[in-house]
Amino acid sequence: MSSKITVAGGAQPAYEITIENGLLSSVGERVRPLTRAKRAAIITDSNVAPLYLKTVVDSFKKADFEVCSFAFTAGEPSKNLETVNRIMECFALNRLTRSDIAVALGGGVVGDLTGFASAIYLRGIDFVQIPTSLLAQVDSSVGGKTGCDLPFGKNLCGAFHNPLAVFIDSETIKTLPESRIADGFAEAIKAGAIRLPELFSLFEEGVDDKIEEVILKSVQMKATVVENDFTEKGERTLLNFGHTLGHAIEKYENFCGLSHGEAVAVGMAIITKASEKAGLTKIGTYQRLTACLEKYSLPTKTDIPLNELCKIAINDKKSTERSIKLVLISEIGSAFIRQIPWDRLYNFIAEGEC
Amino acid sequence: MSSKITVAGGAQPAYEITIENGLLSSVGERVRPLTRAKRAAIITDSNVAPLYLKTVVDSFKKADFEVCSFAFTAGEPSKNLETVNRIMECFALNRLTRSDIAVALGGGVVGDLTGFASAIYLRGIDFVQIPTSLLAQVDSSVGGKTGCDLPFGKNLCGAFHNPLAVFIDSETIKTLPESRIADGFAEAIKAGAIRLPELFSLFEEGVDDKIEEVILKSVQMKATVVENDFTEKGERTLLNFGHTLGHAIEKYENFCGLSHGEAVAVGMAIITKASEKAGLTKIGTYQRLTACLEKYSLPTKTDIPLNELCKIAINDKKSTERSIKLVLISEIGSAFIRQIPWDRLYNFIAEGEC
Repeated sequence: MSSKITVAGGAQPAYEITIENGLLSSVGERVRPLTRAKRAAIITDSNVAPLYLKTVVDSFKKADFEVCSFAFTAGEPSKNLETVNRIMECFALNRLTRSDIAVALGGGVVGDLTGFASAIYLRGIDFVQIPTSLLAQVDSSVGGKTGCDLPFGKNLCGAFHNPLAVFIDSETIKTLPESRIADGFAEAIKAGAIRLPELFSLFEEGVDDKIEEVILKSVQMKATVVENDFTEKGERTLLNFGHTLGHAIEKYENFCGLSHGEAVAVGMAIITKASEKAGLTKIGTYQRLTACLEKYSLPTKTDIPLNELCKIAINDKKSTERSIKLVLISEIGSAFIRQIPWDRLYNFIAEGEC
Repeated sequence: MSSKITVAGGAQPAYEITIENGLLSSVGERVRPLTRAKRAAIITDSNVAPLYLKTVVDSFKKADFEVCSFAFTAGEPSKNLETVNRIMECFALNRLTRSDIAVALGGGVVGDLTGFASAIYLRGIDFVQIPTSLLAQVDSSVGGKTGCDLPFGKNLCGAFHNPLAVFIDSETIKTLPESRIADGFAEAIKAGAIRLPELFSLFEEGVDDKIEEVILKSVQMKATVVENDFTEKGERTLLNFGHTLGHAIEKYENFCGLSHGEAVAVGMAIITKASEKAGLTKIGTYQRLTACLEKYSLPTKTDIPLNELCKIAINDKKSTERSIKLVLISEIGSAFIRQIPWDRLYNFIAEGEC
């Protein structure tokens, strides 16, 4: 199966996402018609490099690119300005000009950092995304958000920078550990919960042999939302369902506890329990949501005191004024935004009072 | 006198440049109607802070902003990612949200760094430019280019990020040393040489009591060019007249020799001597250009071997393919681009062969 989705976004040119089993070995020749680049800098991490770097390098060489590559240490701690700087060093030492390209080969961290380095090197060069984790395939490779963490907070700096193209080879997820797959499922279940009830139902039935369909539907959903609201002034905010508390959990655990997807799963569960109590969500939705998450071994509870999470959430970058925007669902497939004053956040989350 | 120029640029909103003597003390109230920001982070350097920071802070406070400020060590060596990081630290520690603003109070380095930090903090917040050096007033505060140096090259990273507004108080140049004023004159003479023969003539007559007119004309010229070609695919390149060799001189001297303006002056002189020899420039133009530069104590010669400068220029980021784009003038007021192969650059510059 091969699927193509075109994403238009912001003031930047539209780009195509190709989803196809086994496309990795021909990715260079697919990029060739899209650019007049002479050089391609392939950026990856220490987990992905031994698995796929050679295949991708060979493919770009065959397509007549001068290829250089750089692999940084895998993991969230690398997601900082220092790594962005080292990626740009790779660009500069290999004399990439404004017409050359970068290639992000890896999961979300690789995509975010490579995209950001591409956005600022020479004030912007093109980059190609080849997401190899399910999480990146269903979520982070779509939408043009790039960036890194600062010592004082996650994702505090970045740029909107659309890729030239995205190539998704669902074969690559075969090399992921179970827990990383569940991570991607959490975002895909979120996509279903906020906008695609049929995707959510697919998860309820079981998706083990339907990964490509899950990727396709999630990408289509995100592409539509991003097209409507590139710079996140409105609808795009809905994609943050589960993320306010999810981020707070990750932060409380210093990003060494639950993974991003797991934390989002807990976040979705807590917030939906509260909104159901508050009469804002159809009765039974919380039960349906948690059953689905648990089916994929995703957590739905946390031992962290809710008042601690509320404190962290209030410090979150998404808070404006003295209230916080929460994304809630009225039922599976339908999300909305509710503004909650800071001083009532705990009561809402703990007791469903609003 | 108060002049206002509106600049439209790229996909970003248009903004206004106000040129007025003594506006510094009312800048806060002038910004107030432009934004719903609660907080303003005023970024400056160690030279400018003792002169103007208090005036500007007071003005923003009076206009009902919560104000924080940060001053970094003045000078080109600060123009790096580390300082960008420290500016973002100031933003983060003072809890600036996406609706708050940064204010760049200072010369080109302050503007470039503050603009870049504003472009990437939370993927972009608004910023206001208050250029206090003549160079920044006539050139770098217009056009939306922001950025910093990398260890492997000048201005290698950055973003196009338009300010919310620019406020120019020509009073501030009274505190500049003579040499920094000449620096600004070099860019203004360049503006005249490439596009505004009447501005060039003004310099030939003497501009000592016409600084505001010089600023106004230079800004108008740059605003027009930038509007026509925001991302520098064509016409904007003309602004690089004198810059290819100018940058090379600065680089050869490790940025510890001639100032930017002085280096550009030498660059304009060398390249015009060559193009006149080559028959591409009206006879007498070189003499007229150097006489004008020397009138303002700007250098027009260098002892650095030309082959060294050519080597450096070829490494410059603006080089694409195996040739280099040179900006030449056919006469005062009219510039054009000539592509010169790398291997013929020295012969062109040294001998006027093309």
